Amino acid sequence: MSRSAAVIRLGGHVDEVVITGGLGFIGSHVADAYLSAGYRVRVIDSAIGAVIDGSDYASNARYKLVREPVEDYLAGGGTFNGVDRVIHAASHVGPAGILPRAGTLGYDIVASSSAVVEECLAADVPLCVFSSAEVYGRSGILDERDPLRVPTAYNARIEYGVAKAVVEAMTVNSMARGLRAVVIRPFNVAGQRQSRAGGFVMPTFVQQALAGRPLTVFGDGKQIRAFTAADDLTHFVLDYMDAAIDVGEPIVNIGNPANRTTIGGLAERVRDLLGSDSPILHTDGRSLHGDAYAEAESFEKMPALHAATTLGWKPSVGLDDLIRATADYYESREDVRGRHAPL
Amino acid sequence: MSRSAAVIRLGGHVDEVVITGGLGFIGSHVADAYLSAGYRVRVIDSAIGAVIDGSDYASNARYKLVREPVEDYLAGGGTFNGVDRVIHAASHVGPAGILPRAGTLGYDIVASSSAVVEECLAADVPLCVFSSAEVYGRSGILDERDPLRVPTAYNARIEYGVAKAVVEAMTVNSMARGLRAVVIRPFNVAGQRQSRAGGFVMPTFVQQALAGRPLTVFGDGKQIRAFTAADDLTHFVLDYMDAAIDVGEPIVNIGNPANRTTIGGLAERVRDLLGSDSPILHTDGRSLHGDAYAEAESFEKMPALHAATTLGWKPSVGLDDLIRATADYYESREDVRGRHAPL
Repeated sequence: MSRSAAVIRLGGHVDEVVITGGLGFIGSHVADAYLSAGYRVRVIDSAIGAVIDGSDYASNARYKLVREPVEDYLAGGGTFNGVDRVIHAASHVGPAGILPRAGTLGYDIVASSSAVVEECLAADVPLCVFSSAEVYGRSGILDERDPLRVPTAYNARIEYGVAKAVVEAMTVNSMARGLRAVVIRPFNVAGQRQSRAGGFVMPTFVQQALAGRPLTVFGDGKQIRAFTAADDLTHFVLDYMDAAIDVGEPIVNIGNPANRTTIGGLAERVRDLLGSDSPILHTDGRSLHGDAYAEAESFEKMPALHAATTLGWKPSVGLDDLIRATADYYESREDVRGRHAPL
Repeated sequence: MSRSAAVIRLGGHVDEVVITGGLGFIGSHVADAYLSAGYRVRVIDSAIGAVIDGSDYASNARYKLVREPVEDYLAGGGTFNGVDRVIHAASHVGPAGILPRAGTLGYDIVASSSAVVEECLAADVPLCVFSSAEVYGRSGILDERDPLRVPTAYNARIEYGVAKAVVEAMTVNSMARGLRAVVIRPFNVAGQRQSRAGGFVMPTFVQQALAGRPLTVFGDGKQIRAFTAADDLTHFVLDYMDAAIDVGEPIVNIGNPANRTTIGGLAERVRDLLGSDSPILHTDGRSLHGDAYAEAESFEKMPALHAATTLGWKPSVGLDDLIRATADYYESREDVRGRHAPL
């Protein structure tokens, strides 16, 4: 039986899910998916990484918004008592978004996640934690059981990656304390609402093409990525989270190898699909985002999907559909969060 | 000019050093070294990992003890204003000592270190942070510039190692915010006061030999380690910390390759040197410390010392002297902290 249909229980109880970072890109997709499935949704969000302000949900009686960092919410007496599941999506994000927080973002990520883990233990609620493919720190086909590689020429990007590894370790080690949890490592998730503010390439290229501006490809553009639809990710969360916990798959890659592309190839595809005349400009990420900007350590970042596919999940949204969904969204809207980001 | 002589300034100001974890093994050696050099010493210690209670210093007017976790001390209004340097040695430690804290120790280590980094920035005080050779997570000759390897079959030991990597990243990344700091990775430090409580091998073997009990070698005993005297470590802190900050060596291995030995060889050496008839017993660490105990990932853990030796430091205390110093200490004293640890 799929979880997404099983939310109204005997006595009229409607399952409630807490989503931290639910105003962010991934969190808001997860919130929409749970709302569509009939759940009550409690979003807890500091608004630091918000891509929406939540006003679209104001009339939805099943949606509750707490505008506060989750660690403050819990320190101030908030609880997860009676909640049916917690999705911890709150985090600083994006290769450019994290730059101003170098030196403190490691603490922020570990502290909020530790507070969530402790409260899930106290309230006995199953937990889904978002980590990042950034933890791998190396190139190639990346499997959940592979060791991670941490370069010690530290920068913000590596601080982010090792902080996510601590979150993984705390989550997995807390299973021996009774925590029911799964950790997801998303690979280059994209879709509507993703902002160019964090330095994400898909909304940057799409918005550049829509504006008739040059598409800015960093380096030689031969970096290989596999873009994954936010909808494919939420499909895993809704329908396979319980199974992952039941079978004890603590860490699950979510990605879409069929969408493999070079970044240069993505720029061409965006331009062709959107009928744009924008030139493709090869540049250095630091010229846009400043000297602290760093490319991913992994020249080729491709997920092995053993854990997720063993459970029965598979991705279904192709690269062209992802580009179109992003373009459809920004054709009629401004990227409010990205207003001050380079275009 | 050596730092250790330059503590009395014009106007009668005597330099003050804050030592977090100053009741612990490494911290107490650092405190003694600064006291001997004429400094005022402010120890801030939660007493969680204490090997002494501080009573020996009660009559020393240059010694001040704050019995509180440093993060609580700072949150409660304590400051480093006017302090001349901070040595952050507070941490959960030891392969057995960390086991009961799996799932939370990552947060503890990152949170206390972040508080120290922020206060050193606010008060503009140079900082020396203790990381660990555990960050490397692999075998061989380990150089400061090598990438780290993180196995994702998480356990307490790996949570400890990645938390230390986050501390390193926060410290190094904060240099761009104005922090003056150096990170030390100690390799198998030993000496008087080290307790067997954390699962440390040197005091365990020495105390077993002194008690006429079997020396418990884990596995085949062929693991290779290089033991370093606490005195050699404190020599670096006192005399080379400023130089490391000045030349911008952010991460410094401290170890003693000349003391290279197998663990089985160490057991034999301890027995021979102390004239003991104790048998050597090969066993599994889990039989003493429980199923959660894990051996180091590194079969051979040997430091490359480029950074430290370039600055002019070199280790001088040999393995036999280290064994004798540990034995001299425990011949006349109980290992109070280790009272409930396996012997």
